[in-house]
Amino acid sequence: MNSDKSKTLMASIRLLNEKLHFEGNVEGNTPISIDYTPPLGDNLGYTSLELFLLSFSSCAGSAILVLLRKMNKIIDKFDITSVGQRKESHPTGFSSIAMQVNIKSKNLNADEMEKVIGMIDSICPVLSMLDKNINTTINFEIHE
Amino acid sequence: MNSDKSKTLMASIRLLNEKLHFEGNVEGNTPISIDYTPPLGDNLGYTSLELFLLSFSSCAGSAILVLLRKMNKIIDKFDITSVGQRKESHPTGFSSIAMQVNIKSKNLNADEMEKVIGMIDSICPVLSMLDKNINTTINFEIHE
Repeated sequence: MNSDKSKTLMASIRLLNEKLHFEGNVEGNTPISIDYTPPLGDNLGYTSLELFLLSFSSCAGSAILVLLRKMNKIIDKFDITSVGQRKESHPTGFSSIAMQVNIKSKNLNADEMEKVIGMIDSICPVLSMLDKNINTTINFEIHE
Repeated sequence: MNSDKSKTLMASIRLLNEKLHFEGNVEGNTPISIDYTPPLGDNLGYTSLELFLLSFSSCAGSAILVLLRKMNKIIDKFDITSVGQRKESHPTGFSSIAMQVNIKSKNLNADEMEKVIGMIDSICPVLSMLDKNINTTINFEIHE
């Protein structure tokens, strides 16, 4: 599959018990344990919405890093924490997602970072697939 | 966090190298290795869009299982393979996602399964967050 990942991606899940515990797989990777909270599940793995946050964070993070490196910024540390607020009624998807980006860089200022964040709309695939009614915010902190 | 997962979810990623290799984390779970294909990444983990497919598959799969069990269906095996076709221009999100559900059950027929699939719109959070222009299809095969 690797040579085609720019066009087609594939993933599979397999039910492991009589509740909602799955093993998630993509060829060549360590399987991921996926489960839901009690009583439907047993908390034996990531929930679907947590995987969604990791998907979105890593997509946005990759977009930011690619742009910063094109600007010759030196990134010594980079992490993102994402928090999603769920709707109260079904389907309980996120009404809002807030990302907090923490960067350690000696040659990056806040204006440059604002500019980069404004550009990720055009290159982050996961963001492009989201319903525009979901409120997504990206805040950041730059440490030298 | 566990007690609040019905309302708020949190996940974090941390950059591990000078390219796009991240460690993804949710408290209490085994970290997930996330990376992109060369030349931007080194294929050291799941891509963001593969995590997205796992998120969506497990969400849809959980919705299907919850509904089937309410109908007293006995599920002996259950797996889903999802294939996403990416757009050719940026942002290269999925234009279509096709799920193939394979179920082993002695007391489930195709009409019942069609009905269940028609109901997941109203309970699958990940599906509810997707842009309606993405073509999602769910096919299935029932084995006795």
